[in-house]
Amino acid sequence: MSAPLYDRVALIGLGLIASSMFWAIRRTGLAGEVTGYARSEATRATARRIGLCDRVCDSAAEAVEGADLVVLCVPVGAMGQVAEEIAPALKPGATVTDVGSVKRDVIAQVAPHLPEGVFFVPGHPLAGTEHSGPESGFAELFDNRWCLLVPVEGTPEAPIARLRAFWEGMGANVDTMDAEHHDLVLAVTSHTPHLIAYTMVGVADDLRRVTDSEVIKYSAAGFRDFTRIAASDPTMWRDVFLTNKDATLEILGRFTEELFALQRAIRIGDGAHLFDYFTRTRAIRRGIIEAGQDTDAPDFGRKKVVR
Amino acid sequence: MSAPLYDRVALIGLGLIASSMFWAIRRTGLAGEVTGYARSEATRATARRIGLCDRVCDSAAEAVEGADLVVLCVPVGAMGQVAEEIAPALKPGATVTDVGSVKRDVIAQVAPHLPEGVFFVPGHPLAGTEHSGPESGFAELFDNRWCLLVPVEGTPEAPIARLRAFWEGMGANVDTMDAEHHDLVLAVTSHTPHLIAYTMVGVADDLRRVTDSEVIKYSAAGFRDFTRIAASDPTMWRDVFLTNKDATLEILGRFTEELFALQRAIRIGDGAHLFDYFTRTRAIRRGIIEAGQDTDAPDFGRKKVVR
Repeated sequence: MSAPLYDRVALIGLGLIASSMFWAIRRTGLAGEVTGYARSEATRATARRIGLCDRVCDSAAEAVEGADLVVLCVPVGAMGQVAEEIAPALKPGATVTDVGSVKRDVIAQVAPHLPEGVFFVPGHPLAGTEHSGPESGFAELFDNRWCLLVPVEGTPEAPIARLRAFWEGMGANVDTMDAEHHDLVLAVTSHTPHLIAYTMVGVADDLRRVTDSEVIKYSAAGFRDFTRIAASDPTMWRDVFLTNKDATLEILGRFTEELFALQRAIRIGDGAHLFDYFTRTRAIRRGIIEAGQDTDAPDFGRKKVVR
Repeated sequence: MSAPLYDRVALIGLGLIASSMFWAIRRTGLAGEVTGYARSEATRATARRIGLCDRVCDSAAEAVEGADLVVLCVPVGAMGQVAEEIAPALKPGATVTDVGSVKRDVIAQVAPHLPEGVFFVPGHPLAGTEHSGPESGFAELFDNRWCLLVPVEGTPEAPIARLRAFWEGMGANVDTMDAEHHDLVLAVTSHTPHLIAYTMVGVADDLRRVTDSEVIKYSAAGFRDFTRIAASDPTMWRDVFLTNKDATLEILGRFTEELFALQRAIRIGDGAHLFDYFTRTRAIRRGIIEAGQDTDAPDFGRKKVVR
C-alpha cells in the first residue's frame, strides 16, 4: 500500500471506468476515501450492494464536498451539465478531471463552469471492454494501458504531476498532449474503427438472405471481432461521434477513399495492388505486439494451445 | 484413439490449416498415415524438422499416391494448378477435398481436372488465426468451430459422410450448403470484415500527422482488434477477393450505403439515429456468445480479472 495521493476522491458516474478506478484505487490505497454518485437510483443501489465506493451519495454536489480530486465519468454529452451541478460544492484547491474519449468538446463544456482556485486537468484512459455498468469494473483494467492527460493552458505543474502519479498508481502509463491532437489520434485509433465495426454488424443484421443464425454460427471467420467492438455502450458512442465530429469525418473520408481504391482493385482483378496493401498492414500488428499493447497468442489467446 | 477413417491422408500445402489438421489427426488417430507436400523447399524442410506429417514428399503427385483422402490446402488461386498436377496420380475411389475460403471458384477450377471414380467434396473449415505457415498449426484449431461441406451434384452419400466424420473427429461441427450460398454468407461473416480491417489499418499507416508510434501506443482503444485481422496471410486474402468478387462487391455496396447514412447522422447531429443503430448491434454479440462462438470475458479474456 502506498500513502494516499488524495484524501478524498469523488467518482461522478459509476460505469465501467469509475468502477474499475475504485477497485484499482483500493488495490494500492491511492485515496483515503472514495465517494461516488450515479444519476440512476438503480445504479446507486447496485453500487451499495457490491461495495463500490466507500460512500455512495444521492447527489453529485454531496459526493464532491470536501473532495481533493473529482473525476467526471459520465458520457461526454453530459459533462457540461454535471460540471454546472457540482461547481458550487467544489473545495478550493481541488482538482477536477474527466475520463471522456473526446477532449476539445469536454473542455469547452466543463471549463466555463469551474470556479477560480479549482484546477481542471482533462484526462482520457485508453482502456475499456465491451461491457458497461457498475458491475463491469475490475482493478486491472488500466494495467499497462495509456492514460492521456490534456492540461489546459495556465494550469500549475503540481496538480498535473499528482494526477499523473495517481494514474500511474492505478497501473497506467501516462502521456500528455494537446486537445486537438488527442481528438485526431483517437479518431484514428478508436472512433473510426468503432463506427466501422458498428456499420458492418448493422449490415449483417439487415441481410435477410443470410439469416441471423448463420451470421452468428459462422462468426468465427472474422466477424465476431467486429461484434465485440460493436457491443460497446451506445450512449457513450453516440456522444463521441457527435462531439468529435470533425476529426471523425476527416478520417472517415480517408477510409472511404482507400476502400474505393481496394474495391476497384477487386473489380478489375488487380491482385498486385491487393497483395501489396495486405503485406504493408502486417507490420503494424508486429509493432503493437512489440509495444506490449496486445498479445501475440493466436486469436487473442482465446484458447490455450497444446501440442 | 478411434479407428482410422482413412488409411492414408495427403495434405497438399503445409500452412496453418494443414499443420493444424495434422496435429488434430494425430490427437485422435483419424488416419493411418499422413503425407504432406509444400511447393517451397524451405517449408518442406521446416515440416521435416518439426515432425509435421509422417512423410514429407518432394512432389504433390508423390504425396497423393495411394491416398484415400487428398486435402488441398493451398491458396484459392492455386487450386486448379495443383488439381491438374495430382490428377494422374490419384487412386481410384479416393476423395479429394479442399479448405478454401471460396467455393464456386474452387469448384470451377478443380472439378474439370479430376478423373472419373474420384469423389470431389469441397470443404471450408471456418477457423484460423492471424498467424500462418507450417509452425503456426495446433491440434485445437477446429474444436467447436464450423466446417462447411459443399458437395457437388451427383456425389454419392458415402464419401460425404466419411469426410463429415473426419472433420467431426478433428473437433469441428459440420454443416452442408450450396456453393453460391456459402460464398454470400462468407462475404458477410469474413471477406468484407477482412477487407474493411485491412483498409482501416492502411489508413492509419498512411497518416503522417498521427505518427506510427502513436497509432501503435494507443491501439488498445479499439484499433488493435482490426490489426489482428489485417495481419492475416496476404496471398490467401488476395485470392479470396479475386475469386469471390461478386458477393464481396455486393456486401461492400451495402456497407458503404450504411456507412454514408451514419456519416450523415454525425454531420447533421442526429443522435437518435446513432443511438438506435448502436443499440441494435449489441444483440448480435449476445447471440454469438450464446452460440458458443466467442467468449464473454471482457476483451476476449486477454487478461485475467481478479478482484
